[in-house]
Amino acid sequence: MEEGTEEKLLVEGRNEVIEAFRSGRTVDKLYMLEGSKDGPMQTIRREAKKQGLRIDFVDRKRLDQLSETGRHQGVIARIAAYHYGEIEDMIHSAKEKGEDLFLILLDNIEDPHNLGAIIRTANLAGAHGVIIPKDRAASLTAAVARASAGALNYTPVARVTNLARTIEDLKKEGVWFVCADTEGEPPYGMDLTGPIGLVIGSEGSGVGKLVRSKCDYVAAIPTKGEIDSLNASVAAGVMAFEIVRQRDYRGA
Amino acid sequence: MEEGTEEKLLVEGRNEVIEAFRSGRTVDKLYMLEGSKDGPMQTIRREAKKQGLRIDFVDRKRLDQLSETGRHQGVIARIAAYHYGEIEDMIHSAKEKGEDLFLILLDNIEDPHNLGAIIRTANLAGAHGVIIPKDRAASLTAAVARASAGALNYTPVARVTNLARTIEDLKKEGVWFVCADTEGEPPYGMDLTGPIGLVIGSEGSGVGKLVRSKCDYVAAIPTKGEIDSLNASVAAGVMAFEIVRQRDYRGA
Repeated sequence: MEEGTEEKLLVEGRNEVIEAFRSGRTVDKLYMLEGSKDGPMQTIRREAKKQGLRIDFVDRKRLDQLSETGRHQGVIARIAAYHYGEIEDMIHSAKEKGEDLFLILLDNIEDPHNLGAIIRTANLAGAHGVIIPKDRAASLTAAVARASAGALNYTPVARVTNLARTIEDLKKEGVWFVCADTEGEPPYGMDLTGPIGLVIGSEGSGVGKLVRSKCDYVAAIPTKGEIDSLNASVAAGVMAFEIVRQRDYRGA
Repeated sequence: MEEGTEEKLLVEGRNEVIEAFRSGRTVDKLYMLEGSKDGPMQTIRREAKKQGLRIDFVDRKRLDQLSETGRHQGVIARIAAYHYGEIEDMIHSAKEKGEDLFLILLDNIEDPHNLGAIIRTANLAGAHGVIIPKDRAASLTAAVARASAGALNYTPVARVTNLARTIEDLKKEGVWFVCADTEGEPPYGMDLTGPIGLVIGSEGSGVGKLVRSKCDYVAAIPTKGEIDSLNASVAAGVMAFEIVRQRDYRGA
């Protein structure tokens, strides 16, 4: 299990900047389009004032230059960098809340939109964290933060060198693992309650063989239709909320 | 219910072009990067030969100019335009398969990636079609086709002038409607079997008041966490597969 590392992060867009303030993040620098006076911008100005932060009013060209996503909506904040989380802290957080551990592990999701959407889903499904491998996978960029709709401020993401070894370590602590694949049994007949790790594979190639072999269950969402497979973030959502249903709505 | 209309469509990317050939679409024009000889490109060349189609070998600059998505991977096909489907045909298709009608209605989804991902989900959940409003919603562009991963070739999408009126018309034919919202009852206790229309709202503002008032059920996916709501295509996936579970795996 890995040390937390640091990255710089731009937060772009009105809701995203408001959310960054509200979640208690320290904004280092705030760029705003000169002359912006609508409601959300007023909110951002008030939040900046509370933090004693001076706003840099700039023109659209400057904002376009600064933007990483191309969708700044007239406001960009530079925030104290995202830290990667620690698996130990996720375990601790579950214990503190008196909940069974619920982790989502991503086997090489490369699309930042999918990574962000899955972090968003993890937050809303009550997962205690997301685990990604160090190599090849998307890292925590502004595009990921944007697609996470603010969830990256709350749900920790840990990076590990070897996903299969992490699974083995966690199994020793009583965590069960279910991976989502195109071939397997429907999840509805499985017992997905108790401490669980949900493993989602990459868009192109699914869950790797080694990682798959470490899982206790291989679940296939029962699909019909003519095409191959669900979008990775949709598959993660369907599986995550099947876990929620089994935990909280069994018998319904 | 509306007449089908026609649009031009570019299909970009290797898998997308192969899928367009395999689904039996007539490719009018095929642009390929000169010197391309890897496996997928060989497959595309074979498919083109089968159709007696001459390939235009062009340089990267020309492909970049033609591309609408910026992700052509060296190949772009122009195909016989996508037709919008007819609701009558969706009803007919359900009858023919001996299945209860299953439609997904989108109240102003504007993001082409979400629209494409929902068409993909509709195909895999066995829905008979997707219905979108004519105004404001995203239309069937190359980006939608790409995000649908080929599903747009199989799952019809109908456009209607007034979504609320379409719901009223379909209710007369015995279809029940459930809309997904952030406030409502968990879907797990609802009876979502039988002919059903699933209504998904836009990212920003959810399902409109009028459309919502026409629905028989308002379902809220039970979320925890700190942020507001799931990505629209993830919410559509969770709801669509809850309908699949209730239809095919009740009691599991």
